[in-house]
Amino acid sequence: MGDFNQSVILEAIRRSVAGLSRIELAQVTGLSAQAVTNITRRLMQLGLVVEAGRTITGPGKPRTILKLDASRRFAVGVHLDPAVMTFVVLDLAGELVSQAHVHTPVGSATHIIEAIASGIEAVITESGIDRARVAGVGVASPGPIDAALATIVDPPKLLGWHRVPLKQALSDASGLPVHLEKDTTAAAVAELWRETEHANSSFVFVYLGTGIGAGFAMQYEVIRGSSHNAGEIGHIVVDRDGPPCACGQRGCLDVVCTPQAMVEKAERLGVLQDSRVGSDAESVDERFRELCARSHDGDTRALAVLEDSAAQLSVAIAVLTNMLDVDRVIFGGPYWTLLSEAYMRIIPARIYAQSATRALRSVPVSGAISGEDVAAIGAACVVLDEVYSPRASTLYLDDAVPEDANG
Amino acid sequence: MGDFNQSVILEAIRRSVAGLSRIELAQVTGLSAQAVTNITRRLMQLGLVVEAGRTITGPGKPRTILKLDASRRFAVGVHLDPAVMTFVVLDLAGELVSQAHVHTPVGSATHIIEAIASGIEAVITESGIDRARVAGVGVASPGPIDAALATIVDPPKLLGWHRVPLKQALSDASGLPVHLEKDTTAAAVAELWRETEHANSSFVFVYLGTGIGAGFAMQYEVIRGSSHNAGEIGHIVVDRDGPPCACGQRGCLDVVCTPQAMVEKAERLGVLQDSRVGSDAESVDERFRELCARSHDGDTRALAVLEDSAAQLSVAIAVLTNMLDVDRVIFGGPYWTLLSEAYMRIIPARIYAQSATRALRSVPVSGAISGEDVAAIGAACVVLDEVYSPRASTLYLDDAVPEDANG
Repeated sequence: MGDFNQSVILEAIRRSVAGLSRIELAQVTGLSAQAVTNITRRLMQLGLVVEAGRTITGPGKPRTILKLDASRRFAVGVHLDPAVMTFVVLDLAGELVSQAHVHTPVGSATHIIEAIASGIEAVITESGIDRARVAGVGVASPGPIDAALATIVDPPKLLGWHRVPLKQALSDASGLPVHLEKDTTAAAVAELWRETEHANSSFVFVYLGTGIGAGFAMQYEVIRGSSHNAGEIGHIVVDRDGPPCACGQRGCLDVVCTPQAMVEKAERLGVLQDSRVGSDAESVDERFRELCARSHDGDTRALAVLEDSAAQLSVAIAVLTNMLDVDRVIFGGPYWTLLSEAYMRIIPARIYAQSATRALRSVPVSGAISGEDVAAIGAACVVLDEVYSPRASTLYLDDAVPEDANG
Repeated sequence: MGDFNQSVILEAIRRSVAGLSRIELAQVTGLSAQAVTNITRRLMQLGLVVEAGRTITGPGKPRTILKLDASRRFAVGVHLDPAVMTFVVLDLAGELVSQAHVHTPVGSATHIIEAIASGIEAVITESGIDRARVAGVGVASPGPIDAALATIVDPPKLLGWHRVPLKQALSDASGLPVHLEKDTTAAAVAELWRETEHANSSFVFVYLGTGIGAGFAMQYEVIRGSSHNAGEIGHIVVDRDGPPCACGQRGCLDVVCTPQAMVEKAERLGVLQDSRVGSDAESVDERFRELCARSHDGDTRALAVLEDSAAQLSVAIAVLTNMLDVDRVIFGGPYWTLLSEAYMRIIPARIYAQSATRALRSVPVSGAISGEDVAAIGAACVVLDEVYSPRASTLYLDDAVPEDANG
């Protein structure tokens, strides 16, 4: 139980903005004063926590405030999206130190893996941190992933990827521990990590990227699914008159609400000229940004394409919220900022209207705290979770101060 | 932590068919021999556990086997289905002691509540147990429920029920503690409770009653949802050419795959004569049984109605399994036995074909261990869970042996 209590203490210190005294830690965790003293001593020895001044509140002797030593360790997060790769560096408190975006190169898996490895080195260099303090790399990738083998298995939007051993390849290239997580799950991890007010709430995270996926959290836990592939929602039928889908149905979310589907619809309706040279991720991305810009500039036909997709996406989200009975819906991912204006006008009212529990409560809808880079940030948070877990902190923190130096 | 450890020990004893010695308990739980000795002494004082003989395995002194004292406490489970009410009595081991089925009377909520109260008394009397040993009554009801107020809120299939304070009314009538649980969640609780082999697996439970709902379990926990209303899956679109639904869509699960929907379809197609006097739950139930009987007897048109509904239900189940990435699908509820033959021919292959992780694994499909009464059994298991939790066992077990008598 000591390990669990250490996590609880560390988490409490991390979530408090101003730091906490030992007495406050005992109060918020319910642990004994002696246990708090022992655990915080160990955390200071590990270099994760430092004493940061004293505070006088009421009678009694001044209390020493404990804070994270946030620059003691860092985590790299990578998001591999078919269109764009995102790289971030977070410190131990989860604060963003550095970030970079690179177009995902077109080519073989080997070529893309080389680009990821270069991106990791570049973002570490750019951040100016000591490379020895990087605890690991988290990679958020499209699914399905094979968590046991740490490979990506035939992801529908990464053509030619078949059981790519991403973790091993990146670990070999960087010399760092690598964690693989499904992109939508990573996004939910990021929100849960950065949440301070509603940390125990349950939510559906709707991820708007090249594809659309979902992440789920309930009572401090992200639901990963038993093979780490939860959140595949692309074949929920949302438009009975929609185009046919490879799955055999018509009007699936995947062929109605993705950027590519919206671009194709806009082209069919003549809202966008059908002038694309290809349907690769980068040119779809470009055309989709044009569609959103037109809508923003007052083109009512462009707006109608976005609003129709909002209404259709609401159908799928209502399926999720009714099935899991969650408190909230959070939107995020690379296309959320572009879509938020049109989506927020349509989606909240529709989800509420379709809610099985509307007699009991509302279902608030909001954008991600972590912004567009939520998946990369979440991937880095997965690494931080490992640092925070006592098992891993002994593995990673090889520069921990020996017991007798501080005891 | 002592409370948690007590639950762990009790659970280990319960799940072992032959009972366990203290040494075995220490091995399976990872607790110290001293902790096991202290906790099992307390459980014996509470009357939950008894010594049941000795065993000699290998060298060393004979080991005393500990078992549940299953007849020390009982739980009543009630399932309120719009067509039929089910009553069960379970002993502390979760074994069925007695059961009864009564047609749900047509009439006001007050009238139905009286019938439930009578049914509770009747099943207790019929079981021959000492009424003082009944720990409580669990009621599985259609949703939505308001867990905070313990009321049922406008359930779509119970006309005229508006915020009915079921828990209070039944508690007043019986003098027993009453627990309210959504029917589909109760069903998942029953499966989790009776599961011995795959206790840590995740599953979607598909409940086939007057309505169709789902329950979910992951890692020893049922997912209740934050307002205790998880599992509303009735508006997943499964047939683009299906009839219109009150929600505004066409071809929702609720208007395609319920017994009423199948009966109406069979009548439209002339498979059943349209001779019903009403569409109340009881006459739909009767007609549906006729449809299933015809299919079983070789009427290919009746079989086609069932097989079509199986294919359509598969669409909704694939949405659930892909979203939550579960290990298994379990079917149950009052209509499962009638439908299992046709459904098992169609559904497993379709779920697998639509699985997002089919490159990684299969998704086994099976019927509930608990059979047709799964929701009532699950409601009783909710009461047993309360008895097993240390907080509650001190509340309920007022005839516990005082410390000095056994210490």
